Amino acid sequence: MAKTQPKPGWKSKIHEIIYEADTPAGKFFDVALLIVILISIVLVMLESVSSINVKYYWHFYIAEWIITLIFSIEYILRIIAIKKPKNYIFSFYGIVDLLSTIPTYIAFIFGGHNLLFAVRALRLLRVFRILKIARYVGESNRLLLALRNSRPKIIVFLFAVLIICIIMGTLMHLVEGEKGGFDNIPISIYWAIVTLTTVGFGDIYPVTPFGQVIASFIMIVGYGIIAVPTGIVTSEITRSQKKKIPTNTQVCPHCNESKHIDDAEFCHNCGKKLNE
Amino acid sequence: MAKTQPKPGWKSKIHEIIYEADTPAGKFFDVALLIVILISIVLVMLESVSSINVKYYWHFYIAEWIITLIFSIEYILRIIAIKKPKNYIFSFYGIVDLLSTIPTYIAFIFGGHNLLFAVRALRLLRVFRILKIARYVGESNRLLLALRNSRPKIIVFLFAVLIICIIMGTLMHLVEGEKGGFDNIPISIYWAIVTLTTVGFGDIYPVTPFGQVIASFIMIVGYGIIAVPTGIVTSEITRSQKKKIPTNTQVCPHCNESKHIDDAEFCHNCGKKLNE
Amino acid sequence: MAKTQPKPGWKSKIHEIIYEADTPAGKFFDVALLIVILISIVLVMLESVSSINVKYYWHFYIAEWIITLIFSIEYILRIIAIKKPKNYIFSFYGIVDLLSTIPTYIAFIFGGHNLLFAVRALRLLRVFRILKIARYVGESNRLLLALRNSRPKIIVFLFAVLIICIIMGTLMHLVEGEKGGFDNIPISIYWAIVTLTTVGFGDIYPVTPFGQVIASFIMIVGYGIIAVPTGIVTSEITRSQKKKIPTNTQVCPHCNESKHIDDAEFCHNCGKKLNE
Amino acid sequence: MAKTQPKPGWKSKIHEIIYEADTPAGKFFDVALLIVILISIVLVMLESVSSINVKYYWHFYIAEWIITLIFSIEYILRIIAIKKPKNYIFSFYGIVDLLSTIPTYIAFIFGGHNLLFAVRALRLLRVFRILKIARYVGESNRLLLALRNSRPKIIVFLFAVLIICIIMGTLMHLVEGEKGGFDNIPISIYWAIVTLTTVGFGDIYPVTPFGQVIASFIMIVGYGIIAVPTGIVTSEITRSQKKKIPTNTQVCPHCNESKHIDDAEFCHNCGKKLNE
Repeated sequence: MAKTQPKPGWKSKIHEIIYEADTPAGKFFDVALLIVILISIVLVMLESVSSINVKYYWHFYIAEWIITLIFSIEYILRIIAIKKPKNYIFSFYGIVDLLSTIPTYIAFIFGGHNLLFAVRALRLLRVFRILKIARYVGESNRLLLALRNSRPKIIVFLFAVLIICIIMGTLMHLVEGEKGGFDNIPISIYWAIVTLTTVGFGDIYPVTPFGQVIASFIMIVGYGIIAVPTGIVTSEITRSQKKKIPTNTQVCPHCNESKHIDDAEFCHNCGKKLNE
Repeated sequence: MAKTQPKPGWKSKIHEIIYEADTPAGKFFDVALLIVILISIVLVMLESVSSINVKYYWHFYIAEWIITLIFSIEYILRIIAIKKPKNYIFSFYGIVDLLSTIPTYIAFIFGGHNLLFAVRALRLLRVFRILKIARYVGESNRLLLALRNSRPKIIVFLFAVLIICIIMGTLMHLVEGEKGGFDNIPISIYWAIVTLTTVGFGDIYPVTPFGQVIASFIMIVGYGIIAVPTGIVTSEITRSQKKKIPTNTQVCPHCNESKHIDDAEFCHNCGKKLNE
Repeated sequence: MAKTQPKPGWKSKIHEIIYEADTPAGKFFDVALLIVILISIVLVMLESVSSINVKYYWHFYIAEWIITLIFSIEYILRIIAIKKPKNYIFSFYGIVDLLSTIPTYIAFIFGGHNLLFAVRALRLLRVFRILKIARYVGESNRLLLALRNSRPKIIVFLFAVLIICIIMGTLMHLVEGEKGGFDNIPISIYWAIVTLTTVGFGDIYPVTPFGQVIASFIMIVGYGIIAVPTGIVTSEITRSQKKKIPTNTQVCPHCNESKHIDDAEFCHNCGKKLNE
Repeated sequence: MAKTQPKPGWKSKIHEIIYEADTPAGKFFDVALLIVILISIVLVMLESVSSINVKYYWHFYIAEWIITLIFSIEYILRIIAIKKPKNYIFSFYGIVDLLSTIPTYIAFIFGGHNLLFAVRALRLLRVFRILKIARYVGESNRLLLALRNSRPKIIVFLFAVLIICIIMGTLMHLVEGEKGGFDNIPISIYWAIVTLTTVGFGDIYPVTPFGQVIASFIMIVGYGIIAVPTGIVTSEITRSQKKKIPTNTQVCPHCNESKHIDDAEFCHNCGKKLNE
């Protein structure tokens, strides 16, 4: 299509490779980036295991810098390739991409070797690189839609759950007193959440008969009302399943809009020509 | 609308501010009250943490009295502003509003400083103030409707769950004997509830092979029958989703009825004029 | 209706009281019996608490005999009042009613005071009296119908769950070896069931990294496939909700059939006249 | 049907017995095989209990060889009876059948008595014999269909769950530090999975107030989003329930195809004659 477009230029080519997935180069770029992301996450994880970190400290250090440089280049190319960089920079993925590179630089400047909490936090921020993967999950569109549509109801539901937990936690604190770990209301509410969501760690549990009766009540309530969010989401999904979802992977080089119908030649958002 | 209404009077104005949310003053009142409620709940929680309570005893004491006074004034205004106070006083929210103020007064009269159980209970009753928030959750109407419609079925279901727990608990007491904490039937039933609802604290667990077989059976039953309440509520929600819900926030100043259709000028319950 | 029926006789009157709930006497009988059942269950429970049993041994002993006599009389009346006693005796409720009385007699004959396992088991059998209550739960008809219709699918599902647990349990036994409690395959399968059903007691848990990876896999599978029984039952309930269920409480005095449509004058099963 | 078929031969008879279930001999074969499979599984389980293994070592040894021989004969017969053995050998059940016999032989050759990990693993592989049972579960066709149709959505969902667990686990490692068992990121992610799936072993749990707040958040998320897979599968099952499933148990002797419509006389896959 679009044969009359005058000289696509190298920016347009980079745009096609980085932002789209319908050319061999675009597909290769996506797969390569995915692998780098996964390696990066595995490295962050392994680095946190002190026995491994002590042994391979320099390997981690070098690998980290290589990955950071790759992500930095990707970030810069993404800004160059697009005609309105603002649309990218302040989008969700723009912020995620920035957060994937910046912590390593800051940690380097402020002395990455000492163990200050702020620096450690910065270094662990790198785990958010995993969100870069979200770009490649197309199927989730429909799921996200169903979740977004049922969000107000689910928030109300979780709110009700929280109210129940606050009241029940206070009751348990009153009944169990200082025994069994129900020392204060916040910890008792924490216990009520652990119990109502049917997690049940067992670090705190009632020991008085009356406390066990209340606990039984909370558990049965939690077991019963889990039906509510399920019902909400189920009816949303059933409804959303009737709609069609486009599979076009093209992204407008002008405004970064990505939801184009399958045969689109022009961006429905800004009216500019899409890449071939 | 309703331009011919003779002199609305200050009571009617207060009514509009307190009971409704379609004027700026009404909205401000709602938000301010919400904040006071949340502060109050946080204070009750923090007060229960003994290390914090020792340090800031007098801060809590003064804050508590300020909040109680605010709620008392709110309560009195609500009674004054309405034409048939009875409808408010004996409604759910009337009782909640009273319970939000009264414990502080009673605890003061009967010596709020000693640690008698009754006084402690009274003080913790203040946590029920959280129910004041329920007023602002409009979306829940439909959820409550679905839950109310499926209530008889859910009660029957929970009843069946209880019967299973009683029989299984007794069986476990018989099989496990005095080992592993299954000392008597009530505690064994408590364990059966903990297990069937998939909470699983781990404070009590079977140690004999046969006990573990029964436990496996209970767990699989619990894992399987959770489908029942979910199925009930799901089909109710699917059904209820076809109905429309009004968004009118007006409340009749005569009879306190709040479910008016969107263009209502007169109360559908008592026929009196609604506020502008 | 049925004014020409010749002399109903005392048997027919007893039938109306015991088997039906549409006369004041019938309702009173039902409520009285319900209370006796509940008292009986509470007594069995309390008796198992050794500190209470020691103190009130004789109270329990006498109460037990009174309740057993009441149930015995009820059982005999039920046999007398019906025209084809076999239909009752070999029905589910006939067996439950018999099991509610017989253990006390047998335990008395074979020396109810010693603590042989068989006698203890017999005494605890009394807890099955709770099943007498099932008679009064009309609403469950539809639920039971939905469950019965989805039974083959749920059995296949639970079967698949069991296969997963057997394979995963064996794998965990292999990986964890004798550490952490995975001593043999049966206990490892028990652990897999505890984990897959999301109960998670925490009496046994993996300690090796690879064991924790497998455990994570089992948990995510368990978290995911709980959707299957829920989906099955939900679609069954949605379907069954379109059918009407009769509310007639009459029971045929000839054949004990209880599912009569609302205006039935004759039993649809044996053609005999129903009680007025 | 098919009276003109020339001399069915003994291979065709064996095929009818082994692969189909519509003759008395075929049914007997199926039931007998089922029993052998179950006995085999129970033996593998019991053998792993060291106290039992020490006592009955030789019983297990002999029983194991008898079962292996039976499965070997079955495997050879299945290959002989079919006209295109390749179709069977490389099918799912062909591999399962091979795996049911081969470990015993290999363990024998490489010295089944020592406790090398590889040999132990081989011996435990026998537990996969349970998969032979899958052949007999016809009902699951529809369930599998629903699961297969919703697979892409469920994978996306589990993927999202994993991303949440990775981020939350890292956060917990940061907040809890080395206290309470959150020593490194992998173990913290393992904990996040245990918590989000509402299993909650209790081997690791947060002890700092802020860690408990994050844990509460994870638990409520896990409690809420379980609705998603349920919703997906429910709508799939509701849809799949409208389709009909054939009950023909015939299997083509030429190409091993098993999905024939009820009156099929010729295989829909290779066009050859089916058995009578």
